[in-house]
Amino acid sequence: MQAAEWARDITDILHGQDEQGALERLARLQPFDRAQVLAHMEPQDRLRLVRSMPVPLAAETLEYLEPETQYRILDHLDEPRAAALLQGMSSDTVVDLLLALHPLQAARLKAWLPPAYRERIDTLMTFPENTAGSLATIEYIAAREGWTVQQALDHVRKVGHDAEVVSYVYVVDARGRLVRVASLRELILADPHAPLTSVGRADVITVRATADREEAARLLTDYDFVALPVVDDQHRLLGIITIDDIVDVIHREATEDIQRLGGSVPLAESYFKTPVPMLFRKRVGWLLTLFIAGAYTSTVLHHFEGLLAQVVGLTFFIPLLIGTGGNTGSQTVATLVRALAVGEVTFRDMLRVLAREVATGALLGAVMAAAALIRAYMLGVGHQLGPVVAVTALFIVVWASMVSAVLPLLLHRLRVDPAVVSGPFISTLVDGTGLFIYFSVARALLNLS
Amino acid sequence: MQAAEWARDITDILHGQDEQGALERLARLQPFDRAQVLAHMEPQDRLRLVRSMPVPLAAETLEYLEPETQYRILDHLDEPRAAALLQGMSSDTVVDLLLALHPLQAARLKAWLPPAYRERIDTLMTFPENTAGSLATIEYIAAREGWTVQQALDHVRKVGHDAEVVSYVYVVDARGRLVRVASLRELILADPHAPLTSVGRADVITVRATADREEAARLLTDYDFVALPVVDDQHRLLGIITIDDIVDVIHREATEDIQRLGGSVPLAESYFKTPVPMLFRKRVGWLLTLFIAGAYTSTVLHHFEGLLAQVVGLTFFIPLLIGTGGNTGSQTVATLVRALAVGEVTFRDMLRVLAREVATGALLGAVMAAAALIRAYMLGVGHQLGPVVAVTALFIVVWASMVSAVLPLLLHRLRVDPAVVSGPFISTLVDGTGLFIYFSVARALLNLS
Repeated sequence: MQAAEWARDITDILHGQDEQGALERLARLQPFDRAQVLAHMEPQDRLRLVRSMPVPLAAETLEYLEPETQYRILDHLDEPRAAALLQGMSSDTVVDLLLALHPLQAARLKAWLPPAYRERIDTLMTFPENTAGSLATIEYIAAREGWTVQQALDHVRKVGHDAEVVSYVYVVDARGRLVRVASLRELILADPHAPLTSVGRADVITVRATADREEAARLLTDYDFVALPVVDDQHRLLGIITIDDIVDVIHREATEDIQRLGGSVPLAESYFKTPVPMLFRKRVGWLLTLFIAGAYTSTVLHHFEGLLAQVVGLTFFIPLLIGTGGNTGSQTVATLVRALAVGEVTFRDMLRVLAREVATGALLGAVMAAAALIRAYMLGVGHQLGPVVAVTALFIVVWASMVSAVLPLLLHRLRVDPAVVSGPFISTLVDGTGLFIYFSVARALLNLS
Repeated sequence: MQAAEWARDITDILHGQDEQGALERLARLQPFDRAQVLAHMEPQDRLRLVRSMPVPLAAETLEYLEPETQYRILDHLDEPRAAALLQGMSSDTVVDLLLALHPLQAARLKAWLPPAYRERIDTLMTFPENTAGSLATIEYIAAREGWTVQQALDHVRKVGHDAEVVSYVYVVDARGRLVRVASLRELILADPHAPLTSVGRADVITVRATADREEAARLLTDYDFVALPVVDDQHRLLGIITIDDIVDVIHREATEDIQRLGGSVPLAESYFKTPVPMLFRKRVGWLLTLFIAGAYTSTVLHHFEGLLAQVVGLTFFIPLLIGTGGNTGSQTVATLVRALAVGEVTFRDMLRVLAREVATGALLGAVMAAAALIRAYMLGVGHQLGPVVAVTALFIVVWASMVSAVLPLLLHRLRVDPAVVSGPFISTLVDGTGLFIYFSVARALLNLS
């Protein structure tokens, strides 16, 4: 909104041949806003401004743009400037950009980086997308074991401009192993002449580069850190994960879980960036699977055709009873999938969860049985079918509670994302089994065969 | 896991009459771990340790405990010590604790606070739970406009121990209005003799205390800040919101959305802390509402009883067809609810969303029509009912797509959480209307009345 207006204003200034004025307006903005403004401008205007911006300012702005926009800009600049910008960007952004590009484009950009930096980027690029290593950035401040507090602070002053986070100084030994961490606050509050090893703490909370990114998120949020060091198997410091990247991870994981729970494969892009054929592809698989799984409802109904012909009234309650089962399952699954995701529940809680859900299901089932009974009388078939639908409602609700208590935990145990046990999945499962319960109860209570 | 083991070890040391040893073990842990260990210990052992811990260490540990545990500890300490601990805790934790207590208990604790501090706490307590103000803490570092960089740094050294975040220094004028912000990194890198007004920036990104907490979350994540100043209507600085509190907000909002999408009222507590009767209460309302809303499926079926008696085969496809409609709706709703929550989609995108969902629905409907046709032939009723179920499948899928594209956006516009349009809600809505579509199509294609 505001960014679009600013973009118009700045474009007007630029077109009025006051490039300096336009640059000054831009420079006053926050980096995020500046990026938004550039994203709203015409490519040639945007390029003209990026060409004239001081390199640190331009690099900082580029950080907030999408990889495709970053590439389009870098691709149109002359090589020394593009190389300077790329080196000015933080390493995790560079990694994301390189991974988003065609390998040939990526190779061209990488050639602009100094060899030592390129090597570290290559290491970070080897970690698969869901690992802690994939989130790491190398712009941290490292200090040597033998230094004093003053030496460390001088070092912060010297390299602090390029660091992502200056809140912590990581102390490494001669082999690059992380031996200590001190916060900037601790350094400032300490005696400048004290040895660095007297400040901060030696038992540093770290995450392995190969660990799941959710593990990193859990550590950062539990301990309220703003950055978490990432180490390799030899405890050598590879990089740090900053809290803002973790916030993105938490957002993304929640989005994926919600889309899975809705019965769709998670979208890789935001909603409007996903074209209709892709929306179709993400949904059709599950929809067809559920259709095929649900097809046996027809078999059950076909099997009980005689019963249905004898007592036509039974048909009236089919959608209502199986729908209630599906709804119950959907409630339970959503609660448990989330509890699993945030680590409140694990597989070892199975029996406890089952007991709780069966108890809750029994209470809910009793209420739904009463509702079903009332509904049968309202339809004028209460005398004949009331007991059948009431007993069925109770059984179906308890059954749905059991299924949806066990399945998410089981899948979590099998390392399948439990969110694939979506509401639609449980509904479909309960539809067929629910019908079977219904007709069995009907047969027993109505003394039919 | 680990915390439970540590708790056992430390309890053993304590019972071996080595209180000092137990305290030293505890002091070496991270605050979060220390709190976990205390939470795993027997109340009398826990109390004994908290009594002997240095106040800053104990206060820092208490921060990570639940309000009820915090109160149980404070309640058992002698008053001067309890008062010192309470004052040592950060103000947002104190506010959360006071709000969780019975008013009389809260009043007793508040009486221990110095009047000026109590007044600020009272201000923070007036902001409702979902506002930015409710997340604010007053442990920030403020500096005066007229100071030099050196004066500001000296001030950080003096008060930094008590601050939540030392990454920023907030510059206020004589009336307490926020006029500038400088990061600690900028201060350290600046000339110590420069005036404070030459460092940092004057256009500070702030949030009003009365704004929604999601607004604060959006600002902190967009701008990648670790703290965001909260101001009143006169732009006076009331407090700051730190990124770790925002991470909790993001977690909580995602949990609530997932539980709502599953068709349940969100739980106030974690899963195992919610007793079965409460689980029942959170679920029964929606379950009954959906039952009542779904009850008209019986009316529709009752209405078409004649048609069903003439063509019994129609019954076979009821669960499958309405289930497919519900599944389609559930997929769309989950995607849109999340897109609304993260701000990717707004009400003004209605027509665009509708067009995309109808297009996707038409593609999906065509596939499902083919699947339904095949299923009808497999059941041996394809010649008679094949065209009916195929046309119905197409219509129902497109219809479900339309309903679930429009409803979440409409609710969002009406300021109702769109997540209440859960999968179960859409399924129930589509069940009845889907049956109506089914029988209308059957009547038309089979030339029945």
